[in-house]
Amino acid sequence: MRLGLWFKLGLREWPGYVPLVPILRTYTREDFSHDLIAGLVVGMVTIPQAVAYAFLAGVPPESGLYACLVPMVLYAIFGSSRQLVVGPVAVAALMVAATAAEYAPRFSDAYLGVTTIICLQSGLLLWILRLSRMGGLVNLLSHPVITGFVNAAAILIIISQLPAFTGIEVDGATEPLVVLTQLLQSITATQPLTLTIAAGSLLLLLVFPKLSIVVCRWVGMDLSDQHAISRLGPMVVAVLGIVLVSLFGLDGKINLVGLVPSGLPEVSAPPFDLELWINLFPASAIIALVSYVESYSIGATLAARVQTRVNSHQELIALGAANIGAAFTGAYPVAGSFSRSSVNYYAGARTPVSSLVCAVVIVMVLLLLTQLFNDLPHAVLAAIVMVSVVGLMDLKTTKQHWTLQKNDAITEYATLVLVLFLGVEFGLIAGVILSIAFFVRTSSRPNITQVGRVGDTDHFRSIKRYDVETLPHVLALRVDENVYFANAAQIEDKFLKRSQRRPGTEHLLIVCSSINVIDATGIQMLHRVNANLERAGITFNLCEVKGTLMPVLEAAQLPQTLTGQVFFSADRAMKYFVELKHKEQQRQSTLDFSL
Amino acid sequence: MRLGLWFKLGLREWPGYVPLVPILRTYTREDFSHDLIAGLVVGMVTIPQAVAYAFLAGVPPESGLYACLVPMVLYAIFGSSRQLVVGPVAVAALMVAATAAEYAPRFSDAYLGVTTIICLQSGLLLWILRLSRMGGLVNLLSHPVITGFVNAAAILIIISQLPAFTGIEVDGATEPLVVLTQLLQSITATQPLTLTIAAGSLLLLLVFPKLSIVVCRWVGMDLSDQHAISRLGPMVVAVLGIVLVSLFGLDGKINLVGLVPSGLPEVSAPPFDLELWINLFPASAIIALVSYVESYSIGATLAARVQTRVNSHQELIALGAANIGAAFTGAYPVAGSFSRSSVNYYAGARTPVSSLVCAVVIVMVLLLLTQLFNDLPHAVLAAIVMVSVVGLMDLKTTKQHWTLQKNDAITEYATLVLVLFLGVEFGLIAGVILSIAFFVRTSSRPNITQVGRVGDTDHFRSIKRYDVETLPHVLALRVDENVYFANAAQIEDKFLKRSQRRPGTEHLLIVCSSINVIDATGIQMLHRVNANLERAGITFNLCEVKGTLMPVLEAAQLPQTLTGQVFFSADRAMKYFVELKHKEQQRQSTLDFSL
Repeated sequence: MRLGLWFKLGLREWPGYVPLVPILRTYTREDFSHDLIAGLVVGMVTIPQAVAYAFLAGVPPESGLYACLVPMVLYAIFGSSRQLVVGPVAVAALMVAATAAEYAPRFSDAYLGVTTIICLQSGLLLWILRLSRMGGLVNLLSHPVITGFVNAAAILIIISQLPAFTGIEVDGATEPLVVLTQLLQSITATQPLTLTIAAGSLLLLLVFPKLSIVVCRWVGMDLSDQHAISRLGPMVVAVLGIVLVSLFGLDGKINLVGLVPSGLPEVSAPPFDLELWINLFPASAIIALVSYVESYSIGATLAARVQTRVNSHQELIALGAANIGAAFTGAYPVAGSFSRSSVNYYAGARTPVSSLVCAVVIVMVLLLLTQLFNDLPHAVLAAIVMVSVVGLMDLKTTKQHWTLQKNDAITEYATLVLVLFLGVEFGLIAGVILSIAFFVRTSSRPNITQVGRVGDTDHFRSIKRYDVETLPHVLALRVDENVYFANAAQIEDKFLKRSQRRPGTEHLLIVCSSINVIDATGIQMLHRVNANLERAGITFNLCEVKGTLMPVLEAAQLPQTLTGQVFFSADRAMKYFVELKHKEQQRQSTLDFSL
Repeated sequence: MRLGLWFKLGLREWPGYVPLVPILRTYTREDFSHDLIAGLVVGMVTIPQAVAYAFLAGVPPESGLYACLVPMVLYAIFGSSRQLVVGPVAVAALMVAATAAEYAPRFSDAYLGVTTIICLQSGLLLWILRLSRMGGLVNLLSHPVITGFVNAAAILIIISQLPAFTGIEVDGATEPLVVLTQLLQSITATQPLTLTIAAGSLLLLLVFPKLSIVVCRWVGMDLSDQHAISRLGPMVVAVLGIVLVSLFGLDGKINLVGLVPSGLPEVSAPPFDLELWINLFPASAIIALVSYVESYSIGATLAARVQTRVNSHQELIALGAANIGAAFTGAYPVAGSFSRSSVNYYAGARTPVSSLVCAVVIVMVLLLLTQLFNDLPHAVLAAIVMVSVVGLMDLKTTKQHWTLQKNDAITEYATLVLVLFLGVEFGLIAGVILSIAFFVRTSSRPNITQVGRVGDTDHFRSIKRYDVETLPHVLALRVDENVYFANAAQIEDKFLKRSQRRPGTEHLLIVCSSINVIDATGIQMLHRVNANLERAGITFNLCEVKGTLMPVLEAAQLPQTLTGQVFFSADRAMKYFVELKHKEQQRQSTLDFSL
């Protein structure tokens, strides 16, 4: 079906559906040096996370690793974000656990079957969204909503890393507030050795970029090498950690990643059971949407950092493919990982090739090197994740919004607080609703200004801001908003009040240059204003009506019923009114004379 | 509290809070002749409805009549609609029955206590909405939503009258679809006598206005009397019905209104029981909101017919007062009645005095004339309600919307269908959401036109509609929409694509005359476009930026980072670009010469 559509759309466009192709066409050795390092670093971060999230989701540890292979490669091929790393994530893991546990015992084969069905359904649903062109819906995620979500997610992930950072045991809790409470309750159980290693790693990660550049410059390296090496912090810290543990025999004294089982995934289809499929569908739909929104938010944030954009349609294809890939390789639902994507970005990844490198790393590790991670302390990984995540938090635009655009600031804070306390889904949905509500509220209180002629030009501007010339018998008002149900009553009030309050007004002229849309409620309102002004002896005129708007007015027979006229421009209208007055006065004086 | 606020707002404005005062100041004898007739007719329709709805709500019949006294008078004093009749309504009755039955047995004193608490809470809540200035929310009820609701309500009310119209017994069902199904199942149980009387009444009501005018003209009456008499149809039909029943002894053969108990209501406070109050609050809030929205919709529709408007703030005060009045006179929640308001309107009511007349009628009836209604057939009342309701249906604008504004038409039909099949609350809420969704969708696909100079004027218009002059190295685009999260991505795409597709473009000029709002997402987008165009060697310029918008752009440091400039007008920008080109060519030729 997908293939058929591609043919129909023309094969010439196929690189558009495979963003990796144009990237590889202009790929340089320098790009690869960046991607290689980033891929290796992400690989180092991915392995323990994948295992940890697998436990959280209730699937065997190898499933977590498999979720980083085929899905990651498929996203690298089809994804439109250059830095997004797809694979197992905490939110999806939690949601899968909540759903699948109803149908099978955790860690069983049946349970894994359920998770693969969820994968397949989620993937197919994302493709259906693409085919039905519903992907544009994510444009509703405004910049403040995404910023709020990213900041909240960063806080949640930092909290999730605190047990590993301090060595305090948290018994299976994943809810961030519960984790925080348990940590504070058992603050005395902090393991000094773990905390020291974690804090040391954190410090090293923070100073490493600047320190390495100083050292490199002293050695006499060129600039691009300096930058590449400055990204190596996480790898250096990880290797240092492994060396420390081996040298001093710290095994048993601190938490280590431990045994990772080896071997590659087998390809097999998810089980088919119609009843199970029907029952799982609602959960799959929610997981698909949340995963998509999460991935898209992260992708959009990273893209904005490098002044590019993510294509929402393409993301549906890529994330759909990744999840379908996961379904056939015994994995569980995948999405864009916030922490690994930010590690990828800060380790200098330039293209999705870093994900391919990461996949190769994971294959190598699965086949040969699983025992190396036996000695890697969790504390070191926690420090790496934390530093990456803090770097992605955006507090600057938050401050900017607060002084500049209050609505945006409130939306951002509300999203942040709601994601933190009520969860990702609720927070994001509430943020979108709030954005729309503020937009409607803003446009329901339109700015209506009296305008006048600037000097002897054709320009008409606000009498408040410019020194303009007005006519005593004409009130020219410019409506700075679309006219629709939410503001029709307000606009009607202002039209009537202002024309009746200003003595000597004979003509009301509405300058429609800022009106792009008039809906049925607006049309009804204009008819009423026309009738009411007629009773008050004031004509109702329009000017600078957009070409797209005229057919709407004509179909509603407004130009015909208008007591005044529809003028091409404010300039022509004003000239007409001057002439009209002049003729009236002439007639009057002729009359006086004849008397 | 209310009184304190009034004093604060200045006693001078008090007639604004009591719309009846200015109405009475200009009241004429002719107005009264209209109101008198309308009041009498509404009275005739009200009594049996009040009793019927009381049974539906589970309160004694006299409570239904009491709901037409004090509440109706209070609304007449404080309401801003001239034709709205407040009192017992079907929707509120149904909702009260669903709530109160949980706390006390139907028709008991405790049950009546519960309904008066609901009344008081609803009334207070409406006043709180007024004090917190939230009444403007009803502006979200667009014209199509109201039209859809009104048409649906008309259909529902017609269905509810069908049993009385045909004489078919429907055992206690109130759900319209159930009523309809039962009617169709027992179509053979139609009582020929009832149907004949109903159909006869219907026919007489339909021909009466024209017939009476012909007769009056023949007799030689003047025009205003002709019109007043043409409104008497319902009363004539009712009296004819009573006469018929008495003459031919039809009692027992058709359904009659029957015994209405006599006496006036006593003033007493609703019982106070904190726990009960807390438990009832959510239901009271929903009943209050639905009653308000229903009343406001009906009021707005009637007001639009006579080219006036309803004040949403004042309606909150008036409906709040009416419900509080109901609470203290042993009645149950009241709202604007659709059927009686339309009878009132078609019987020629000009002011709320008709409601006062109606109240007097009800007092008289309660004290003296209850036995008169013994012989009034339900079938006649059903015909009166049906004719009134059909007259209020609005199918003309529906057709207009369909050809003119598809979104409005879809909203209207969706509201109609949802109100019919899923209830008033759901239908109205869905209609509002749909209106907003369409508004956001429309503005998310903005019209972006290339503009050029019209002749040798300062005007710049679309190159598609006018014969305009453009510069080969400048692309001037006008964005016909606010720039915000829902359309930022689209606008970005179009800016980049169109400036890159047009060969020879050196400057992109955005004409901002139609942009009233730019949000944080929009600002981010403009920064990105600026950076991307810079790479392509194209400058990014703005012109005709609204005075209200400049501070926003400046706070975001856009004018400073812009590769181009912010111009006062498109005219000045174009002149600048011509000059710039000229200077460049001069420099080039000097260079050529010097070589």
